[in-house]
Amino acid sequence: MTFSMAERRRKFWGWGWEDEGPDAEQQGAIADILKQRFAMKGIDVRKPPTEDELNLPESRIKPPDSLAALCSTKTYDRAGHTYGKSYRDIVRAFRRSYDHPPDLVAFPRTEDQIIDLLDWCSRDNIVAIPYGGGSSVVGGTEASPNEYRPVVSIDLGGLDQVLEIDKTSRAARIQAGIFGPALEDQLRPHGYTLRHFPQSFEFSTLGGWIATRSGGHYATLYTHIEDFLESMRIVTPTGTVESRRLPGSGAGPSPDRMFVGSEGILGIVTEAWMRLQERPRFRASTAITFDTFLAGAEAVRTISQAGLFPSNCRLLDAGEAQTAGAGDGSSAVLLVAFESADHSLDAWMKRAVECCRDHGGNVPDDAIKTVEKAEGARGGAAGAWRNTFVGAPYLRDAMVAMGLVVETFETAITWDRFPEFHAAVMRATEYAVKEICGSGSVTCRFTHAYPDGPAPYYSVIAPSRADSQLEHWAEIKQAAGEAIIANGGTITHHHAVGRDHRPWYDRQRPDVFARALTATKRELDPSNILNPGVLIGEL
Amino acid sequence: MTFSMAERRRKFWGWGWEDEGPDAEQQGAIADILKQRFAMKGIDVRKPPTEDELNLPESRIKPPDSLAALCSTKTYDRAGHTYGKSYRDIVRAFRRSYDHPPDLVAFPRTEDQIIDLLDWCSRDNIVAIPYGGGSSVVGGTEASPNEYRPVVSIDLGGLDQVLEIDKTSRAARIQAGIFGPALEDQLRPHGYTLRHFPQSFEFSTLGGWIATRSGGHYATLYTHIEDFLESMRIVTPTGTVESRRLPGSGAGPSPDRMFVGSEGILGIVTEAWMRLQERPRFRASTAITFDTFLAGAEAVRTISQAGLFPSNCRLLDAGEAQTAGAGDGSSAVLLVAFESADHSLDAWMKRAVECCRDHGGNVPDDAIKTVEKAEGARGGAAGAWRNTFVGAPYLRDAMVAMGLVVETFETAITWDRFPEFHAAVMRATEYAVKEICGSGSVTCRFTHAYPDGPAPYYSVIAPSRADSQLEHWAEIKQAAGEAIIANGGTITHHHAVGRDHRPWYDRQRPDVFARALTATKRELDPSNILNPGVLIGEL
Repeated sequence: MTFSMAERRRKFWGWGWEDEGPDAEQQGAIADILKQRFAMKGIDVRKPPTEDELNLPESRIKPPDSLAALCSTKTYDRAGHTYGKSYRDIVRAFRRSYDHPPDLVAFPRTEDQIIDLLDWCSRDNIVAIPYGGGSSVVGGTEASPNEYRPVVSIDLGGLDQVLEIDKTSRAARIQAGIFGPALEDQLRPHGYTLRHFPQSFEFSTLGGWIATRSGGHYATLYTHIEDFLESMRIVTPTGTVESRRLPGSGAGPSPDRMFVGSEGILGIVTEAWMRLQERPRFRASTAITFDTFLAGAEAVRTISQAGLFPSNCRLLDAGEAQTAGAGDGSSAVLLVAFESADHSLDAWMKRAVECCRDHGGNVPDDAIKTVEKAEGARGGAAGAWRNTFVGAPYLRDAMVAMGLVVETFETAITWDRFPEFHAAVMRATEYAVKEICGSGSVTCRFTHAYPDGPAPYYSVIAPSRADSQLEHWAEIKQAAGEAIIANGGTITHHHAVGRDHRPWYDRQRPDVFARALTATKRELDPSNILNPGVLIGEL
Repeated sequence: MTFSMAERRRKFWGWGWEDEGPDAEQQGAIADILKQRFAMKGIDVRKPPTEDELNLPESRIKPPDSLAALCSTKTYDRAGHTYGKSYRDIVRAFRRSYDHPPDLVAFPRTEDQIIDLLDWCSRDNIVAIPYGGGSSVVGGTEASPNEYRPVVSIDLGGLDQVLEIDKTSRAARIQAGIFGPALEDQLRPHGYTLRHFPQSFEFSTLGGWIATRSGGHYATLYTHIEDFLESMRIVTPTGTVESRRLPGSGAGPSPDRMFVGSEGILGIVTEAWMRLQERPRFRASTAITFDTFLAGAEAVRTISQAGLFPSNCRLLDAGEAQTAGAGDGSSAVLLVAFESADHSLDAWMKRAVECCRDHGGNVPDDAIKTVEKAEGARGGAAGAWRNTFVGAPYLRDAMVAMGLVVETFETAITWDRFPEFHAAVMRATEYAVKEICGSGSVTCRFTHAYPDGPAPYYSVIAPSRADSQLEHWAEIKQAAGEAIIANGGTITHHHAVGRDHRPWYDRQRPDVFARALTATKRELDPSNILNPGVLIGEL
């Protein structure tokens, strides 16, 4: 039992597999591009930490005999469960700063073992941090530096099976610790897919998606994981919850919705019935350019309000399009795609393309064309985009090693306020980047589009220094977060709150709701052992 | 200020306007049909109660001077707020049984007045029952007969304005006490509609829909009121909640979802930003017959899983189709409709019709035809259905007067379990009807259809006697409720829980969730004044 999966080991300090990411030669090429782009004098590529460089504090606890076999105090495991995978986490790893690792990491394989672990933690006043794939970018899986109690990280990776498939209702009962690829591998032979593809897909879990209200691949209609959730089981320190499998219900407030997004402070998701999709057979896809981002946004608004429900409707601003190899940097690019397991999509794409033309979109001649059996490789702008998307976290880590600030933030806002909101967020962030780092780029894309507003996603790259990376980003994030909250957005559309978003989340969520959530936590977790300080409570 | 609206008065004892419902001649015709259908010897048509027949207990409270002008102790108001509009409520009205009316009825017109009313109730330990349109069919707006405290019914009807329309985001800020028709009247000049049309539409309110997770017109996709909810304001006894206007968010558990379906036990909804639809311009509609209900159900399943999202997909069994004048009683009828403000619907209907043919559906020749500007009258089976739907509550009251059992219940279940579930529910209910009433009919239709299951809706009509109507229905409901819960359904898909569904709801909802909800109620309503006994707490 270990944090590594199969034969390959995951990096304890950063994103993904030990044997993946840009090699030395590629790193050199990246450094050259960055030097030129930001007029940097030289770039040092620091080495990532190794296990023997770390000097973790001694573990303060010993598990009861009955749980000892599930628990590890290995440096690799403890270091690997110290942080999530945010920019800040990677920088701290490069700084070899591992002052608050969990005292031990537990790897349960059954729900009963999870219950036993929580019983032990409640009894002995030990903090329990649920850990799925560890891909949190908001400090959602690390202990507070002020935590005086011992800490156990509970790694759910052993609960990795699709248990049951109901083909008639198109749903499956799935263990919460399963990673994205394993989940899809186990559904594929039956012709199904969950079709929830967050950027973290390869190294995140179903339970983590549910706990953080993850946002996935679909740009419209089915955006968040809860749209696919039929029922779930959750172990709390004071009892286990199982909701009924129901396609819809009006019986009181939804029990599931109380736990979706609760980020491990109320209980640990152990399994869920998830709604599946048949694997898409038809696909229509095109890339449309617009002179300005705002013109593209108007086209997205029209499509979103037309009831067409494209699977993709991703608007990239000129800079974002260029970075992704999906444009030349002179215009915004809208990637529109429809997918279906059931029907040809010409009528859908025809109308979407009309909406784009109405707003000045430059539509390719072959835009309206449904392709069958198009699951494989994708060319053109969409393909370029996809490759960039999946490889981004590896690239990010490489740029951290080069001393850059490289991070993203995301939000959602109604259409009426979008132009001013976007201008304010760009202005505040660009100003901060320039003031703090001297130069740098801020770009934007839409990840999701709703009838009443878009979910804009911002990427920041700026030169910094190894000794200032954390502080530089903290200042930029402060400016961006302030602009988002002051202008009516949400501090996160699908990256969760964790510890890092607390200052803004606390201003965003209604106080009465925070009191209700606190009362619920007190009732379900009276010893306050579960992920304390996340969402509510002490910072 | 009064319970009546404009010039017309509502019946204090039953559904709708005083001057509407079947007249004496029509009642005679109905009685003849029923006599023949159920081989009844004779039918007495009882007279509904009049105000002067009622002898309400004295009001036990006097409002503070500052609130006196908002409060009424008139018999008409107190009697009108004693019950909802279930079969059981109408029977009790015909029995002149008004032992537990509210001590007074308050008619606030502002949020501040609601705050003042709740302050007074908290201070003086008075029960406060939020009252929208009073269309509850589950005892959601009546006090417990065991309640020893005085009771105020807070009628929100004075908060009846659309306050603001955001055309860009297609959303409106709307006061919670507005009735369906007034809401649509105020949106229509701007080209919009909420398109939420529950059967109670004419006499129910936005706030009531939100508090009860109302189900509306759309058969797929946008089924419950929360699908249209962007943000809301709620007054609780310990503070006011306002959520942010956001098209989507992943910041913690949704505050809105905690209050949606809370049935007045946590607070009073005062206003909400609701997502609007443009008024539909295109419509395609057809009626398809199937030899059996189950064959029709398979067609509905296929359509629901195809990603077509029809606005209507209402399957009526043979009996239901005949009653509605939509069929001859020999086959099941599926009403399929697509509506759009944006595009012609031929491609959508073409595929839906193919799904029906694949399952033996008898498709009319002119099925695939999009009609423009089709908002007006509808002919054929769909039109017949619609008229029956809207007039049903008036007809129901007339049949109550004739001593019949006439009530409905509804649920939802996943597709894999549907055939056995439906057989079990029909068997249990038909058996109970026959045992208890000697004869009677049980019919079924689908009101909503999800990719993972349908929402079946059952109607019961059976001969009974004035002195046994309540008891007969209670026994039938007991049999039906037991079959629903034992076979995995929900005790309600869109009629809420109230007091009447508590015995089954308490078995359905997870205990841990009930503890969480109780903790939340204790925090927000420490004096337990708001609708006590609904959803949780003493029966």
